[in-house]
Amino acid sequence: MASPKKTQEPVITSITDLPTADAKWITLQKIAYLDQAGTARTWEAASRKTRAVSAGVDAVAMGNILLHPSRPASTLLVIQYRPPLDAYTVEWPAGLVDEGETAAQAAVREFQEETGYTCEVVSVSPVQAADPGLSSANMQLVMVEVRLGDGEEAPLPEQRLEDGEHIQRVVVPLAELYQRLVEYSGRERMVVAAKLFHFAAGMEFAKTKGKEYGI
Amino acid sequence: MASPKKTQEPVITSITDLPTADAKWITLQKIAYLDQAGTARTWEAASRKTRAVSAGVDAVAMGNILLHPSRPASTLLVIQYRPPLDAYTVEWPAGLVDEGETAAQAAVREFQEETGYTCEVVSVSPVQAADPGLSSANMQLVMVEVRLGDGEEAPLPEQRLEDGEHIQRVVVPLAELYQRLVEYSGRERMVVAAKLFHFAAGMEFAKTKGKEYGI
Repeated sequence: MASPKKTQEPVITSITDLPTADAKWITLQKIAYLDQAGTARTWEAASRKTRAVSAGVDAVAMGNILLHPSRPASTLLVIQYRPPLDAYTVEWPAGLVDEGETAAQAAVREFQEETGYTCEVVSVSPVQAADPGLSSANMQLVMVEVRLGDGEEAPLPEQRLEDGEHIQRVVVPLAELYQRLVEYSGRERMVVAAKLFHFAAGMEFAKTKGKEYGI
Repeated sequence: MASPKKTQEPVITSITDLPTADAKWITLQKIAYLDQAGTARTWEAASRKTRAVSAGVDAVAMGNILLHPSRPASTLLVIQYRPPLDAYTVEWPAGLVDEGETAAQAAVREFQEETGYTCEVVSVSPVQAADPGLSSANMQLVMVEVRLGDGEEAPLPEQRLEDGEHIQRVVVPLAELYQRLVEYSGRERMVVAAKLFHFAAGMEFAKTKGKEYGI
């Protein structure tokens, strides 16, 4: 499972319309509704078919802080090929919530799988709408911390990836996060996920404009 | 168009599976690809059918700052019923980019339509992936400013909404943004959009943890 494999650039071999009835993971729905004025309207939406009933939420993302006695506070990002974009995305580790799990439990499990690190949950956000004009998908941002000892240096711990997962990890000092994401965005076949970019942009905004705007 | 209409709580009357061939705005695709190990795999993805070829991006969101000589720097949020979630979402104004428009042009146009304000573009972000595990949808965050005069007080200027758009505007001091979003999230049938929440969480993180983490 963790044995090194030959790597090559992923390549799309075909894209075909997927009939809704054949889709296993996601679906298309037509929603008929009465709007605020009582007018009958329709809306087209995509939905995940995998939402755990217990949690009522599709996914968690782990806003993570790596703390080390002598190195700057950092965050671990994952870079992986995402077929919908035919590009490598830069994201915080994230995953779907399994049936019977809380968001916090899913965060600890997925973080361990994707990064190899055991983390402590600092806070769990309210449920957020992932892309509200397009889909019903929702998520929670779970802030987690990893406290490293003096001896814990590179290389990063072993991942426990599922078959077919190829996830590269990079550790970025928090103070450089925004600039690094801008740099990644300028690279060939690479795109930063909007949620991570917005968090970093909010940090940068507070840092550079906070005084001027009284925040 | 701007005449007041009776308002009622929106209600969904039916949700039906939408065959891909009948969908006008979005579609489902099956992507076949060779992964990094050369293994043939497939992925199910949702896509918008409306992407403007010229801009290469689906949508813009307007991170906006309202500046007033004697009031705190604020931001304008929009609250609207979103059928995919059967809930009211709290978001920054946003919209699809039209053919022939740049992201900056779309931002100024959409901001005027949704808020009534003329804005100046401060910065345009790189392209970001809206929800990379689920869809090909992408967007750019356009930071805009509105400079108000001393005399410009409530009520807010007239919107130019399309037929069927019911968009409520609220103005929130930037210093209170995060707390207000947490409060909105706790209300019945209300959910905050992830991008806005992440920006605010990033601001709050820098404000409360910036010193501790050296950012």
